[in-house]
Amino acid sequence: DPETICPDSFKICANPAIKVPQTPRICILILVIIRYLNFIQSISGEIMKKNAFYAQSGGVTSVINATAAALILEAKKYKSKIGKVYAGRNGILGALKEELIDTSKESITAIKSLKARPGGAFGSCRLKLKDLEENKREYERLVEVFKAHNIGYFFYNGGNDSADTAYKVSQISKTLDYPIKCIAIPKTVDNDLAITDCCPGFGSAAKYIATSTMEASLDVESMSETSTKVFILEVMGRNAGWMAASSALAKNSSTDAPHIILLPEVTFNQQKFISKVKNIVKTKGYCVIVASEGVKNSKGNFLAESDRKDAFGHTQLGGVAPYLSSLINTKLKLKNHWAVSDYLQRSARHIASKTDLLHAEAVGIHAVRYAVKGMNGVMPVIVRGKGEKYTWSIEPAPLSKIANVEKKLPKSFISKDGFNVNAKAIKYLQPLILGEAYPKFLNGIPKLEKLKLIEVKKKLPKWKI
Amino acid sequence: DPETICPDSFKICANPAIKVPQTPRICILILVIIRYLNFIQSISGEIMKKNAFYAQSGGVTSVINATAAALILEAKKYKSKIGKVYAGRNGILGALKEELIDTSKESITAIKSLKARPGGAFGSCRLKLKDLEENKREYERLVEVFKAHNIGYFFYNGGNDSADTAYKVSQISKTLDYPIKCIAIPKTVDNDLAITDCCPGFGSAAKYIATSTMEASLDVESMSETSTKVFILEVMGRNAGWMAASSALAKNSSTDAPHIILLPEVTFNQQKFISKVKNIVKTKGYCVIVASEGVKNSKGNFLAESDRKDAFGHTQLGGVAPYLSSLINTKLKLKNHWAVSDYLQRSARHIASKTDLLHAEAVGIHAVRYAVKGMNGVMPVIVRGKGEKYTWSIEPAPLSKIANVEKKLPKSFISKDGFNVNAKAIKYLQPLILGEAYPKFLNGIPKLEKLKLIEVKKKLPKWKI
Repeated sequence: DPETICPDSFKICANPAIKVPQTPRICILILVIIRYLNFIQSISGEIMKKNAFYAQSGGVTSVINATAAALILEAKKYKSKIGKVYAGRNGILGALKEELIDTSKESITAIKSLKARPGGAFGSCRLKLKDLEENKREYERLVEVFKAHNIGYFFYNGGNDSADTAYKVSQISKTLDYPIKCIAIPKTVDNDLAITDCCPGFGSAAKYIATSTMEASLDVESMSETSTKVFILEVMGRNAGWMAASSALAKNSSTDAPHIILLPEVTFNQQKFISKVKNIVKTKGYCVIVASEGVKNSKGNFLAESDRKDAFGHTQLGGVAPYLSSLINTKLKLKNHWAVSDYLQRSARHIASKTDLLHAEAVGIHAVRYAVKGMNGVMPVIVRGKGEKYTWSIEPAPLSKIANVEKKLPKSFISKDGFNVNAKAIKYLQPLILGEAYPKFLNGIPKLEKLKLIEVKKKLPKWKI
Repeated sequence: DPETICPDSFKICANPAIKVPQTPRICILILVIIRYLNFIQSISGEIMKKNAFYAQSGGVTSVINATAAALILEAKKYKSKIGKVYAGRNGILGALKEELIDTSKESITAIKSLKARPGGAFGSCRLKLKDLEENKREYERLVEVFKAHNIGYFFYNGGNDSADTAYKVSQISKTLDYPIKCIAIPKTVDNDLAITDCCPGFGSAAKYIATSTMEASLDVESMSETSTKVFILEVMGRNAGWMAASSALAKNSSTDAPHIILLPEVTFNQQKFISKVKNIVKTKGYCVIVASEGVKNSKGNFLAESDRKDAFGHTQLGGVAPYLSSLINTKLKLKNHWAVSDYLQRSARHIASKTDLLHAEAVGIHAVRYAVKGMNGVMPVIVRGKGEKYTWSIEPAPLSKIANVEKKLPKSFISKDGFNVNAKAIKYLQPLILGEAYPKFLNGIPKLEKLKLIEVKKKLPKWKI
């Protein structure tokens, strides 16, 4: 009976009140069959088509939302394969709690505006999934949510820990027999991911640090005759000194600051440090120090250790700068000032690197392309070209080689005395901060579009952590 | 004898080897006399013409060099009255030590590039001249240096203390019988000068603080579900809360942070503070606090002067932010992060306010105009127009009314509970951060022109402080 299978718009064909002559009747029947086949095809297309889940994870950056924007816009190009892109509210927590933000409800203007928005637009979280054997319940919940919302693509935008979570989810296909294409997308100001040449988010933090170091150095230099002799800037970097190293890019025709860079890779030697500060102040008149939050003493303890720990169990740091200030007060009695840039350095979208922004967008775009090609358990990584001129491309790399691996500043980048980085480091770092990508401003501050952040209707019972 | 008085180019007239007929001889004689009179006139013009001394004083700003550039370029327009502009190396110290940088040796490109250079290009200092009665020697030395270098204009670019020094120098004319036109030029991120509607340097620091607060707030907000709940940003402002107040401009369509602003004008009440933080975290999920370095307790002591001790048992200096962090850890056990912007906020030329930059240039230009008009002991101040739309103009104000007067944040700008500023404050602050004025970039950081900083040859014996 055509009435049961015919699409609404063709109901007319089954209306017995309309009398149609014999030959046209056959034509109409053929037409109906063709329409019916199209309908079946579109239905099966809808079934084939899967929704995507995108989540931001760990410490956010000033360009993580640019990745989100690029991914959401790229996904729209694959309408036959990708349905909606759902963003997890507060990262993976959004998947567990079935709090899925429907990005299709946002205007294209709002999505594009994400390119200029720091922080995590959909919320991020610090939650590392345990091994499948240890906490099967969490993985089963993920699969339940994925099934309930027809999610076939999992995009996880984060760092080391997140690559690990993404790797575990990528294995669900086998272990829990649920088909999922899982792509981790690199993001971290720490720049400590393996394989990729650099990490989106780092270049902008590096540009902020280099610019701030240069600006503050000019300030200190101009006052040093009668006022502050030593300036200390504390930057992030728990285990890897990439961010502190980037301050070396502040050197220019007018200033050779920073004079000392303290890296987590180099054990802090108090005596040598004090002697170096003294010597620099004597010869230059002032001394600028950039210190990584993760500087450790010979016992392997953080100089600024506190007993606070974050959700990952990492010791929460802060306060190398006041520690060093105190040391300089005591040992050298030199007037000093200190700054701690903390979140400012990783959210400073107003001084983002154009190169970094392009990287962030590219990894979002390639994540989608890999997923629709059917790839699973990979990360789009940035590959540096071989030539003298900086070039880069994106290639897929297996998560198994990235998860939980931490790339520290290589020894070959560090100066002999351990208090600075060398030309090799500069050559690596320089291209990553090139180019400016200013946001639009409104009322004197960067303009933000209001997001709707509308959640999809829940289909499952509430989940308890 | 024309040979002795005739300018070089007319030496030929006195050459007896050249025989000239009678009538032309008279013509030549008349010509020589006219030339001679012109020569005398130009000599006397050179005597009338005085050099100018310009010095930067106290804490520098991101736009103080824009004032210098505007002043130097404006002075070139009054060639009949102003000779060279000498900049004091390290402010007034440069005058006392006869270290005078000849700005005419710098290229016009280099002078123009000062508009984009933070810090004090010629060096600044913290040195407040005592009263004439107390330290006549210093004033006599100034007059000696001024005489030796034919200086008739004294431009002093600074804050409260500098206005006081400038006022004292302006009185030299009478007391030491040396003619000097003394103009103080406003500059201070503290925004605490009397009479002027605002101070050049403040608008840019305010824009930096508002932008940074907004950016960091988005960061904290996005992580607050599982990570940091409270973020504290410490800003400058020992006695006046203008800078902390400017963070209120961070509020926009997307975030209502900062939730708490701690001002030096309001006595810190620990109990109320803790209760407010707790309440905000409960209702909003996170809390952003901007604290002025000069917040005081009920005993009138700076919170940052508290006896926190470091690992060595040394009392740690500074740090309202770590103090508050510690308090929140103890009383509320809420994960928190803190940043101290210190010199970064006053040197952040990369995020300067266009309005502020225009103010900085205008006061430099008007200082020159006032001086050539013969004014003495005045400051070009910024006057706000009466209308709804922000307009401003520059007018002269007497230094006697500005020296040593400190303009604090008025009570009428502070919210009832003392933890924020109100709409009246926003209305005042808003126009001062409007517009962007990006520097040029080179190799990913703001481009700096190399300055020659060539000193004029010393004519006097060395001076000892």
